[in-house]
Amino acid sequence: HTPLLLKLQTLVVLLSEDSAMENIVTEKKAEESHRQDSADLLIFILLLTLTILTIWLFKHRRFRFLHETGLAMIYGLLVGVVLRYGIHVPRDINNVTLSCHVNSSPATLLVNVSGKFYEYTLKGEISANEVSDVQDNEMLRKVTFDPEVFFNILLPPIIFHAGYSLKRRHFFRNMGSILAFAFVGTVVSCFIIGLLMYGCVMLMKQIGQLGGDFFFTDCLFFGAIVSATDPVTVLAIFNELQVDFDLYALLFGESVLNDAVAVVLSSSIVAYQPEGDNSHTFEAMAVLKSFGIFLGVFSGSFALGVATVSLTCPHVTKFTKLRDFQLLETALFFLMSWSTFLLAEACGFTGVVAVLFCGITQAHYTYNNLSPESQDRTKQLFELLNFLAENFIFSYMGLTLFTFQNHVFNPIFIVGAFLSVFLGRAANIYPLSFLLNLGRRNKISSNFQHMMMFAGLRGAMTFALSIRDTATYARQMMFSTTLLVVFFTVWICGGGTTQMLSCQHIRVGVDSDQDNSVSIGPDGIERRSTKQESAWLFRLWYNFDHNYLKPILTHSGPPLTATLPACCGPLARCLTSPQAYENEGQLKDDDSDLILNDGNISLTYGDITVSTDATGTRTSGQPVGGINSDEALDRELTFGDHELVIRGTRLVLPMDDSEPPLPRDPRHHREL
Amino acid sequence: HTPLLLKLQTLVVLLSEDSAMENIVTEKKAEESHRQDSADLLIFILLLTLTILTIWLFKHRRFRFLHETGLAMIYGLLVGVVLRYGIHVPRDINNVTLSCHVNSSPATLLVNVSGKFYEYTLKGEISANEVSDVQDNEMLRKVTFDPEVFFNILLPPIIFHAGYSLKRRHFFRNMGSILAFAFVGTVVSCFIIGLLMYGCVMLMKQIGQLGGDFFFTDCLFFGAIVSATDPVTVLAIFNELQVDFDLYALLFGESVLNDAVAVVLSSSIVAYQPEGDNSHTFEAMAVLKSFGIFLGVFSGSFALGVATVSLTCPHVTKFTKLRDFQLLETALFFLMSWSTFLLAEACGFTGVVAVLFCGITQAHYTYNNLSPESQDRTKQLFELLNFLAENFIFSYMGLTLFTFQNHVFNPIFIVGAFLSVFLGRAANIYPLSFLLNLGRRNKISSNFQHMMMFAGLRGAMTFALSIRDTATYARQMMFSTTLLVVFFTVWICGGGTTQMLSCQHIRVGVDSDQDNSVSIGPDGIERRSTKQESAWLFRLWYNFDHNYLKPILTHSGPPLTATLPACCGPLARCLTSPQAYENEGQLKDDDSDLILNDGNISLTYGDITVSTDATGTRTSGQPVGGINSDEALDRELTFGDHELVIRGTRLVLPMDDSEPPLPRDPRHHREL
Repeated sequence: HTPLLLKLQTLVVLLSEDSAMENIVTEKKAEESHRQDSADLLIFILLLTLTILTIWLFKHRRFRFLHETGLAMIYGLLVGVVLRYGIHVPRDINNVTLSCHVNSSPATLLVNVSGKFYEYTLKGEISANEVSDVQDNEMLRKVTFDPEVFFNILLPPIIFHAGYSLKRRHFFRNMGSILAFAFVGTVVSCFIIGLLMYGCVMLMKQIGQLGGDFFFTDCLFFGAIVSATDPVTVLAIFNELQVDFDLYALLFGESVLNDAVAVVLSSSIVAYQPEGDNSHTFEAMAVLKSFGIFLGVFSGSFALGVATVSLTCPHVTKFTKLRDFQLLETALFFLMSWSTFLLAEACGFTGVVAVLFCGITQAHYTYNNLSPESQDRTKQLFELLNFLAENFIFSYMGLTLFTFQNHVFNPIFIVGAFLSVFLGRAANIYPLSFLLNLGRRNKISSNFQHMMMFAGLRGAMTFALSIRDTATYARQMMFSTTLLVVFFTVWICGGGTTQMLSCQHIRVGVDSDQDNSVSIGPDGIERRSTKQESAWLFRLWYNFDHNYLKPILTHSGPPLTATLPACCGPLARCLTSPQAYENEGQLKDDDSDLILNDGNISLTYGDITVSTDATGTRTSGQPVGGINSDEALDRELTFGDHELVIRGTRLVLPMDDSEPPLPRDPRHHREL
Repeated sequence: HTPLLLKLQTLVVLLSEDSAMENIVTEKKAEESHRQDSADLLIFILLLTLTILTIWLFKHRRFRFLHETGLAMIYGLLVGVVLRYGIHVPRDINNVTLSCHVNSSPATLLVNVSGKFYEYTLKGEISANEVSDVQDNEMLRKVTFDPEVFFNILLPPIIFHAGYSLKRRHFFRNMGSILAFAFVGTVVSCFIIGLLMYGCVMLMKQIGQLGGDFFFTDCLFFGAIVSATDPVTVLAIFNELQVDFDLYALLFGESVLNDAVAVVLSSSIVAYQPEGDNSHTFEAMAVLKSFGIFLGVFSGSFALGVATVSLTCPHVTKFTKLRDFQLLETALFFLMSWSTFLLAEACGFTGVVAVLFCGITQAHYTYNNLSPESQDRTKQLFELLNFLAENFIFSYMGLTLFTFQNHVFNPIFIVGAFLSVFLGRAANIYPLSFLLNLGRRNKISSNFQHMMMFAGLRGAMTFALSIRDTATYARQMMFSTTLLVVFFTVWICGGGTTQMLSCQHIRVGVDSDQDNSVSIGPDGIERRSTKQESAWLFRLWYNFDHNYLKPILTHSGPPLTATLPACCGPLARCLTSPQAYENEGQLKDDDSDLILNDGNISLTYGDITVSTDATGTRTSGQPVGGINSDEALDRELTFGDHELVIRGTRLVLPMDDSEPPLPRDPRHHREL
């Protein structure tokens, strides 16, 4: 029994051949393989191009029944059919089985062919029944990507963009509900689906329909992966129709966060390994360990995403004056975000989760330090990357329905899955909404609940999780079923959004930006919607963020010298940029500008009486988390979202003396 | 003797092991390998980040002796030293040599380990003396990229950006000289260097310093790869100091095109294969065949790059009104450019060359159809990609000096290489300048010639070509020597640019945009510089482009109904967009605006009397390639470069009724 950690092996070859001839043949083969790869990639590029052109046609004709992702899937399906049945590859393959003593699977294999060494790298394990397929259809295998591509290349920009484009004001206002839906809801949904599927699997076993092992952990894993919602289709329509912003915030926030929860949940279910021989029994210790892994990985990724970004990026952008060189600034921003992902992966955390919180942090702190040009550039860059990655994943989804060679479609399992996905979503939304409504001032009305139920589409994350491992029978059945769930929800639920909206009488045409301006006047709707969820937890965080984090990390907020205790004076002076002092006055100006028309609201800094002298001695009162700070908090968030616009319209402000103020297109802030 | 075309082989394993245990170990290994990969990539990202921060410092302090690329190399060197000597990897490697009958090197290898199949893919051949290194230092091999990454991922954006950012007006005005330098000059330089190096190699053979084969074709190959100049450092300084634009155009145009020439030249030298056993003798037929390959591949790539783009992209952007959806437009633009690269590779042409001409064509035709926002977006996107790819290549270059394990440094070869590179460049610049000066109205002065001689840096393309194949002794020696040539030229020649400029009394601070405005008045310099190279070939092409291509492909130029013969009336009406008719009047307005102040120049359309009626009947005179069309041509090119600015400053023009005209930042057009 030779050691398993064996890394390299040399196979000594006994035959010898004409070396020059062999050389040329190898080169030709490599060239041909490269050409084939280019052609395969070209298929995908052309698919995306076709999708874009059709999307344009749809947008032009205001056709809303099919979203771009649904369309990408249809084109993918068509190409999949052509590849599967239309193209016949001549079999020039010689199958020779050679006997050899190998007793492990090293990562690198050196093969010695007549004195020349060839290096082989491990691509992965393939199941025994796949071997014949491998030999049969090289073509179909060629268009099959390494599943890790989705996780390491395509998902990060999508998730980052979700975090970066989060409308922070709406998100923070509904934070309590969003966290409840994302954490409690996803876990509830996962277990409900897992239990229902276990019943379904038991039934299949009884009537002899199950062709392989299917354990309870597999059922839970299935529950975790189909609990990740991705209402990109619905949100696109919401955006277009300008649906009520609270509904939008709830749906968007929930879907962004539950992706992260689902990833970590599924990995901790996989990590469930009880001691002893029978690895599929219940064991309290192992469950606790899995729970520990969930907490550890999630909080680790969260901390890493937030910490690396907030410790490096805002400081760098705050103090280097990189804003004079937009290209450098944009490049730095991109690299920093990517390195957060890589760092999390290298530390064994989940890169996708880290990148989500990295995106939110970047938007909250770094964004304000960027020059207006770079703010546009980064937004546009990630928008483009998100668009390309998303459409690529969805068209690949369509393609893989035909090119994947180990589909296991089981009618009972499929029906069970659809039913349990529906029930799992219901068990997530309705009870939680009821509980949340007990605490919310602005209730989640029943038509909102129905809409949230309906908008539980499954998308990129569910697909990436299910394709990651398709080695066993159970995983293959899950993958096939997941594909069908995604297709159904994207086409049917996505396509029916407009109908559902009008059927549920949800108001559309709400200008969410209009709603921001406090100067409109004290009408009932305004006040109600801006006050709803200023819970103590949130207020605590807000005060800390506003008084300490924002001043340390950005140019905005009150100067640190005013908020830190007197003993920290020197440190505070060192961390406060000269711009912050300048900004202080301006901030007040900006705020009072907004507030002047609104008689019944006290001053923004009403809860903190700030007065700074040159030595940085603090003469202000303590920040009080009183009820009247709600309004200041609200206005601050409003102001945060609108900073861009305000900076744009006030051309006379000496914000940056190195470049002339840039008149901005008023359409810009909608994309924020 | 089994067939060589064997593609898949199955190695049957005789030992069996505990499957569950094995499974876990394999998973652990895969996870560890993934973590290691993330950490390695993180090193490069942090290297780039560090480079950016230092560049910012340099730019801030206006320090011009070290360009960002030179800096990236220095950081790469440092990290290379640390990786090589600083980190000791514990040897947990078990070397077991197993005997096996394998008689070819298939692309895919299936290894059967106790019932489980593992798939291995061919990574490449490694030389016999490398085998021990592979086993010794896994760490160094980990940070070594597949050389094809440079060609297929990093070079395309760099080359595309070069083509896209080409200042077309200056380029077309000096087109004759640029083509001469790029084609004749590169071939001359390649052969001079090849012959000198052959002498050097003969000398080394005499004194017994040569440790392997080194044929004449190898020398020629070396000549081809070090003939690709990359004056990115010099041009960055030129841009900053605003050096004479003709010198800039000559250098930039030459370096962009000679990259393309060098790629094709090197591949046709590799393709030189005389009949018979001794494959390194002279044979006329094989030389002719190589020459044919050069012509075929170059013109094929050129045609493909120009054709696919000009046949698809401008039409799509012209007729679909995609400009209403900037994201779609940008995505489409990006995908189209990428698909040109892939198509060329799939057809067996050179993708890099195709992508260069694709870039030029996109800039000339598609760019005008894009909305102003997308023009910015695409420019910024490719600027960023170019920046990241370039700095990555240069830092990798520094790194690889220490991490590459088969360096062959031979003092005689290195001295010979430096000498021949110098002489090759001299044999390119001085004789050609003399010959060109016979025909040029605006002579290339001797200080310009010295500057061009001095600015012959070697960069990314030389590196990518030399790292592509390092299998033989000759290629390894070339690679090591090339690295030194790149280091020397980038640091010494790049760093000395400012000194060289002042030493040669070349005028700086010329505002190339200022020079464009014809309205300045008829002073001597203006007239001389705008007239220099309107040769008959160029004039012919210009007329064709202006009268047929531009109207077909873009919204600008005279309507096709006016320029096409009457028989093509229906076709012309179908291809002319409504905007072109609108634009016609505006174009004249714009032109006459510019011309009014300049009394002694005839109307722009002086050589074509255009008058169109609704039915599209042509009543105009023939376009005459007379002498007075020089000025129209000049002005057209000027106008082409300034379209953006003109569109920006004339806010009242109804250019696009779908969106409000956007006040533009005056700094924008400098980046054009």
